[in-house]
Amino acid sequence: MTRVVLTGDRPTGRLHLGHYVGSLKQRLKIQEEKSFKQYVMVADQQALTDNYEDARKVAENVFEVVMDYIAIGLDPSRTTFFVQSQIPEISELTCYFLNLVSLSRLKRNPTVKTEIDQKGYGDSVSVGFLSYPVSQAADITILKAEIVPVGEDQLPMIEQTNEIVRRFNRIYSCDCLKEAQPLLGAVPRLIGIDGKAKASKSLGNAIMLSDEPQEIKRKVSAMYTDPNHLRVSDPGQVEGNVVFAYLDAFHSDKELVASLKAHYKRGGLGDSTLKEILNSVLQEFIGPIREVRTSLQHQLIREVIHAGIDQTRKVAAQTIAEVRDAMGLVY
Amino acid sequence: MTRVVLTGDRPTGRLHLGHYVGSLKQRLKIQEEKSFKQYVMVADQQALTDNYEDARKVAENVFEVVMDYIAIGLDPSRTTFFVQSQIPEISELTCYFLNLVSLSRLKRNPTVKTEIDQKGYGDSVSVGFLSYPVSQAADITILKAEIVPVGEDQLPMIEQTNEIVRRFNRIYSCDCLKEAQPLLGAVPRLIGIDGKAKASKSLGNAIMLSDEPQEIKRKVSAMYTDPNHLRVSDPGQVEGNVVFAYLDAFHSDKELVASLKAHYKRGGLGDSTLKEILNSVLQEFIGPIREVRTSLQHQLIREVIHAGIDQTRKVAAQTIAEVRDAMGLVY
Repeated sequence: MTRVVLTGDRPTGRLHLGHYVGSLKQRLKIQEEKSFKQYVMVADQQALTDNYEDARKVAENVFEVVMDYIAIGLDPSRTTFFVQSQIPEISELTCYFLNLVSLSRLKRNPTVKTEIDQKGYGDSVSVGFLSYPVSQAADITILKAEIVPVGEDQLPMIEQTNEIVRRFNRIYSCDCLKEAQPLLGAVPRLIGIDGKAKASKSLGNAIMLSDEPQEIKRKVSAMYTDPNHLRVSDPGQVEGNVVFAYLDAFHSDKELVASLKAHYKRGGLGDSTLKEILNSVLQEFIGPIREVRTSLQHQLIREVIHAGIDQTRKVAAQTIAEVRDAMGLVY
Repeated sequence: MTRVVLTGDRPTGRLHLGHYVGSLKQRLKIQEEKSFKQYVMVADQQALTDNYEDARKVAENVFEVVMDYIAIGLDPSRTTFFVQSQIPEISELTCYFLNLVSLSRLKRNPTVKTEIDQKGYGDSVSVGFLSYPVSQAADITILKAEIVPVGEDQLPMIEQTNEIVRRFNRIYSCDCLKEAQPLLGAVPRLIGIDGKAKASKSLGNAIMLSDEPQEIKRKVSAMYTDPNHLRVSDPGQVEGNVVFAYLDAFHSDKELVASLKAHYKRGGLGDSTLKEILNSVLQEFIGPIREVRTSLQHQLIREVIHAGIDQTRKVAAQTIAEVRDAMGLVY
């Protein structure tokens, strides 16, 4: 039996190397597994929960993100991409789920709680933002996804989803919704070029999958290394050194990286040499991605999006029919 | 230009005389107005917000309520009935609206606040219940309803709706959503036969539009009158006397009712005589309604419901297309 795997991205910008390391790479692997059917959702509605004033930007980014997917090798004939807002069954299921979740339970969700604190929303938080975990539960369950690749910080979301699933199935005496299992990635995060926070477009510390060669070079040059490594001959520190973090993530020759680390630690290896090595690795990695990306016609992207929406709606319509049937909402 | 009027009922039971006086009578009038296009929504999703454990009961009551509509003379060829859950565009619009409403604003809604207090929900209130005014805003705006007949206590709902409309139109630089005007009824409420609270099925103090003759008679006999009116010759009190409240509402001869009141006040008119008069008025009123109701075939009701849903979805699809367009969610 094939099992459904669901992942997705909020379309708040083009994708970058952090996305590649954190999720895209894993999706490429999952795509090869015959026992999995992979869906990738572009979560425009979820992005709107804190970007509702920039809805047009969100919509533009839907196209950018799908282009990134295709460029890195996600294949629409094997992986189904869909746009969340175009699946109204998700909204309907969200509305049913909202009755099964208390305000206090939502406020306790650690992920949401942290985000509300970070953004300083307090009680002025929108109900849409506060309840996005409920909408996520609908995303997952509408497809009967059993496997959801996530980072550690997303585990409370899966927990919340499964709570809703159990509650729904119990109240409506059915088994039409399935519990989901998290699939934790091996390398969940990539540090930003500033070494301060994880790579993120909004912080401007990420290398985009669509960056031009000059931009890649500039960002590699600006990478945080070891501030005490003043002369080439000085011993340098590998921990917290962004260049090594990227070499670990992207250099195919792990032995070479190990010897570079040893050399750097004992002194005699300069940052500029190191950055040149990384630059060529990244140019080689991003070059073909950027090339495919540039060649993509807008019309093709639209067709891919529409085909994915059609496929997804078939599954979603089936689930919502079962949900309505379980609830007795059949007229 | 015809203006859209929207009303509706939560399908939590069959309809009763209180519904007739409070809204159904007005709907019959509106149905006659050429300048209005009337929609009547059976709000199953809204009923689920505090009855999600009894979803099947809610669904059964959808049929009962539609039967009541037809029985009192609402004509499906002039008034469109629809079932809320069957219009997924409402759920989608609700999800967009949830981003435009803060938690604190919802908690301030006086109607919801009172209900939460009455039901003792506190923070264990479900997000669905807390946000039902947002869902109402979607009901109203998806049809571009301009007129919403309501009771005084529902005015905050219209206010909330119009706030969302203005906010949406401003943020997305459009005029695709319309503000709604309340239409306050002349006789908003009918007292229950116990004289204690407004007529309500759950309190068991209402006369149903489908009550059998014996049941009507029994309920009229049980009506609260004037507890100090012990002998026929005693002067009696008209205020708070349920029998007079019902005579005011249902007797066609207002002069006769006035003279009965005068007679009762000066003494010499017994409760049983008075109740006999009311009983025949109500038998005459409910008799034909019950007769039509009994004659209705389940298949006809289903056809009426489906036709209404089809009509409504056409309008709803048009609005949601404009909404997505305004937000730029076009792929």
